[in-house]
Amino acid sequence: MRPTPSEHTADHLFERASLRMIGDGVPAPDLERMRTEIDRFSVWFDRWAALAEEHEERAAAAEAAGHLITAGDLWWHASLSWQYAQFMWFHDPEQRRYGQERKVAAYRMAAPNLVPQAHRADVAFGDAALPAWFRRPRHTTGAVPVVILIGGLESTKEESLRFENLLLERGMATLAFDGPGQGELATVQPLDDRFDQATSAVVDSLLERDDIDPDRIAVLGRSLGGFLAPLSAARDERLCAAVAFGALFDLRFFDDVPPVPASGFRQLTGIADDAAAEREVRRIVDLSGDLASLHCPLYVQHGAQDALIPVEQARLTAEHAINADVTLAIDPDGDHCSHNRHHIVRPQIADWLAGQLESQSIVGT
Amino acid sequence: MRPTPSEHTADHLFERASLRMIGDGVPAPDLERMRTEIDRFSVWFDRWAALAEEHEERAAAAEAAGHLITAGDLWWHASLSWQYAQFMWFHDPEQRRYGQERKVAAYRMAAPNLVPQAHRADVAFGDAALPAWFRRPRHTTGAVPVVILIGGLESTKEESLRFENLLLERGMATLAFDGPGQGELATVQPLDDRFDQATSAVVDSLLERDDIDPDRIAVLGRSLGGFLAPLSAARDERLCAAVAFGALFDLRFFDDVPPVPASGFRQLTGIADDAAAEREVRRIVDLSGDLASLHCPLYVQHGAQDALIPVEQARLTAEHAINADVTLAIDPDGDHCSHNRHHIVRPQIADWLAGQLESQSIVGT
Repeated sequence: MRPTPSEHTADHLFERASLRMIGDGVPAPDLERMRTEIDRFSVWFDRWAALAEEHEERAAAAEAAGHLITAGDLWWHASLSWQYAQFMWFHDPEQRRYGQERKVAAYRMAAPNLVPQAHRADVAFGDAALPAWFRRPRHTTGAVPVVILIGGLESTKEESLRFENLLLERGMATLAFDGPGQGELATVQPLDDRFDQATSAVVDSLLERDDIDPDRIAVLGRSLGGFLAPLSAARDERLCAAVAFGALFDLRFFDDVPPVPASGFRQLTGIADDAAAEREVRRIVDLSGDLASLHCPLYVQHGAQDALIPVEQARLTAEHAINADVTLAIDPDGDHCSHNRHHIVRPQIADWLAGQLESQSIVGT
Repeated sequence: MRPTPSEHTADHLFERASLRMIGDGVPAPDLERMRTEIDRFSVWFDRWAALAEEHEERAAAAEAAGHLITAGDLWWHASLSWQYAQFMWFHDPEQRRYGQERKVAAYRMAAPNLVPQAHRADVAFGDAALPAWFRRPRHTTGAVPVVILIGGLESTKEESLRFENLLLERGMATLAFDGPGQGELATVQPLDDRFDQATSAVVDSLLERDDIDPDRIAVLGRSLGGFLAPLSAARDERLCAAVAFGALFDLRFFDDVPPVPASGFRQLTGIADDAAAEREVRRIVDLSGDLASLHCPLYVQHGAQDALIPVEQARLTAEHAINADVTLAIDPDGDHCSHNRHHIVRPQIADWLAGQLESQSIVGT
């Protein structure tokens, strides 16, 4: 076990991540309760885990009573609680992995009762499989456009449900997956400089489906995914639009990253030695050699007040995408990924994607 | 203009109503901003109004760009901001009415782009008309069950969208209206002891529709509506289930009601003299003579920690409904209407109604 972070870490997390948690779907009463119960970082995991298990009990009871929508919602709340139990628990990889597994298990229980349902759609990828969830807009027929969703350093395919809903109600299908270094793959396959091959394997799998329009496949990545999505689109021309939901051009600012996420960045590589891991992740996370190859439209969202990834990273991304039609959307009041402005910023991203993919909203009676 | 409440009223409102606002749909970033900007009660209305107008500007821009779902959402946010600008502004009825009008106007703009849409469905009622919004579950055909929603002292037909969504996704249509003393009717027609006739006029109008099942019409009332809904069901046997979402049996506790809502209760009557108004509202709000006539199933939800309406009121309601099948759901940690537990309590109410109305959830692909 690595050294436990400062007991003040909990305060920092609540201060920085509360509006992100709300935006991703954590109920405000749950968050308020966690703020009350968690007075130091060492109890962070256990309190969220206890909350998750309460939701699981209620979910099972609702399911037994035939209240399927409620059951789906509560299993999803349980999954989110597990997500936030483990999301910054980098000092204890074993417990973090346990929380990750419970998160996925709870989401599996939610999946058949989500509206619309989530379908497991794992993708063959070398010796491994990329775990993935596919959702399709309700009451549509034929081939629809699709957005591939890539998570970040600790955000995974189970955390994007609310964002997926924005896309789904605008007529786009969604496929969210964990790539190397992420979620279910975190302890199986480290991040290397070929993440784009994972995205391309996802594209391959989508092209085999008859319910997806092969000419309307976009990719969106959040936080670390703000590096992974443009990289993927630069290396795979089948992707017709890309979004950096929080830009990440390179890690030149790594010395200023707080200790907990810095530890997370190093762990992406699977290298035990800290100095070697840092060198490797700095080498991998670098768009400078690829962005000139990006030819599809690129939307770059960034908060000017981002304390983790400086807004300069968004400008670097836009400047280097010399062959792409770039929309640079900098929110002057936004924090990391503008999560504190999620109610304004996220629908804007969804609307941009709908425009690029010529998607039909399902507004109406 | 009546005397302005204490400048500390803002603190009390944030403390007591924040989770209600979130539950009804106020985005957490908006609420956090209002907490920062409002340091005294005298600026309460103006700060919320400014926020509302920002949403309106963004909504108009989204609409002009053809982003209809976003436009609907932002007009609705504007409407909610107007709601909370005026909701406790009883000391200045003129400004309160202005906020009320802007709220309705913003909701009218939202209505065609809500998912599902809201349709204005005003109901003839004596010399007046009861203003109402009707919504129908999407992608359904034929006659569906319906829930009539009654607001409270200041909650109106524009505030229940999130709750309506819980019902709609469980296969029930919704009709939310302002009755005497409420919302658009507040300054037109005072509350009297025949509110049930308004509900019955709504039932009449629903029976004229061929898309509603006449044998599956329920009524739900929130807060003051926790008095109005059981009253209506006791006096109109066409209603086949009733919910007191926050019970209110009578006003024996009126001496303990804080000054601002107490002023609101008195204003319901339209009587200028405070003492006479109080006598009248105490006379009107009294279920003791009616509950024995209630024969349909009744669900009574109440928070044991309700600081406005004592939990005893829920027990009184249940005890007097001697001829009804009563479900008494007291949340031990719940505040007024258990708004601080909205993520748990509200789906339970919706599931109970779906069971009573034998409604088909629309879970699935």
